[in-house]
Amino acid sequence: MPHRTVEERLDALGIVLPQSPAPLGIYLPAMQVNNEVQTSGMLPMVDGVLAYTGPVGTIHDVTAARAAARLCALNAMAAIAQVLGGVDGLNRITHVLQVVGHVLCLADFEEQPEVINGASELLAEVLGEAGRHTRMALGASSLPRNATVELALRVQVRPPSQP
Amino acid sequence: MPHRTVEERLDALGIVLPQSPAPLGIYLPAMQVNNEVQTSGMLPMVDGVLAYTGPVGTIHDVTAARAAARLCALNAMAAIAQVLGGVDGLNRITHVLQVVGHVLCLADFEEQPEVINGASELLAEVLGEAGRHTRMALGASSLPRNATVELALRVQVRPPSQP
Amino acid sequence: MPHRTVEERLDALGIVLPQSPAPLGIYLPAMQVNNEVQTSGMLPMVDGVLAYTGPVGTIHDVTAARAAARLCALNAMAAIAQVLGGVDGLNRITHVLQVVGHVLCLADFEEQPEVINGASELLAEVLGEAGRHTRMALGASSLPRNATVELALRVQVRPPSQP
Repeated sequence: MPHRTVEERLDALGIVLPQSPAPLGIYLPAMQVNNEVQTSGMLPMVDGVLAYTGPVGTIHDVTAARAAARLCALNAMAAIAQVLGGVDGLNRITHVLQVVGHVLCLADFEEQPEVINGASELLAEVLGEAGRHTRMALGASSLPRNATVELALRVQVRPPSQP
Repeated sequence: MPHRTVEERLDALGIVLPQSPAPLGIYLPAMQVNNEVQTSGMLPMVDGVLAYTGPVGTIHDVTAARAAARLCALNAMAAIAQVLGGVDGLNRITHVLQVVGHVLCLADFEEQPEVINGASELLAEVLGEAGRHTRMALGASSLPRNATVELALRVQVRPPSQP
Repeated sequence: MPHRTVEERLDALGIVLPQSPAPLGIYLPAMQVNNEVQTSGMLPMVDGVLAYTGPVGTIHDVTAARAAARLCALNAMAAIAQVLGGVDGLNRITHVLQVVGHVLCLADFEEQPEVINGASELLAEVLGEAGRHTRMALGASSLPRNATVELALRVQVRPPSQP
């Protein structure tokens, strides 16, 4: 039987949604306007500490960087959940309009798509069909706090269901 | 007599719209939500092969990089056409809200606007007034598959006309 | 007594909104579609001349780069005002959905958030509550015309008030 709700999918994955990460500056983690939620750039934070710093290709291999991208996407989910009133608010997501992912790397690195797949996989696992998205995968020579990945989401949501 | 439809403009330009390029990862080439279509980051692909790799300023001059940007925009048109049901769907575009173009280059390169003009020119030629847009032209130290340009579009469309 | 309108806030800050900067290529400084206004990438221009070029960390310190980011945000305000029919049009802004800021820097620079705070502060000062926003702060190894910062805004506006 397929898992139906985001909560059921998270349970099956053994994922506990983290708290929405604290901003590093004067901005909001996410914002809803009408049926759209935009997140800020998310870093691979765990409990307020960066879990992945330094470039892929030297400090990290693609597998590690992909885990960093997955963590960014999980933090984006947390920020969206906060705006939508809790984890069950994520069930209101109908589309992920865009994923923008920047990968810290040296100039000869070419596998940004494989790294950002870590975020794409999480979106599919947690949101199912609603997690399908367009994407921009980019290289970066520097990122805030030397983070390995920075990633933002723009999602479309349906109104809260009437009881 | 001015050319009226996108098909007529493409014919006059001698352009055959390519197939929407296959994604390099777990994402969609383009997605429509309501009246908006967002594309993924497009590379200067021809028939599934990158036509331009390596940085402008060393491997390529501005003229070549501008051709790469034009090719990215053409592939974006193809991705949007696929979502809108064919080439004639491009006639439904009313505005190009944003062009985001990243140019692979060394740190001393400053002519990203001249490179991304290659995409802007194509949009004007193919879409006419509807091709006017806002734009972000950026430098990149690395890009997926060492592509010379990566470029995404966000466009506004009108509903299909009732017969 | 709190300042109420954008004009009053600008007066109190001693800021005269500049003219919308001329594009560096074939694009518009800003575009409105429905209730959204998107700007192009803004550079730290004053009267058509770049006030800040070169990377932070070598040419500029964080304080100077923050001033460059503030200037980009001011130019974005000018571009939005032009689209909305004048400075008083800025009172129609209800949300700043997204700030995307790219900071020219070397690979070991990590304080992009502190630099882009210069833009975030200006938005708060000029727009008040409506200036709250999500944000992406990124590093760049190169930018158009060697500008120290490039920054774009996406804002939500309400319809013009009926008299």
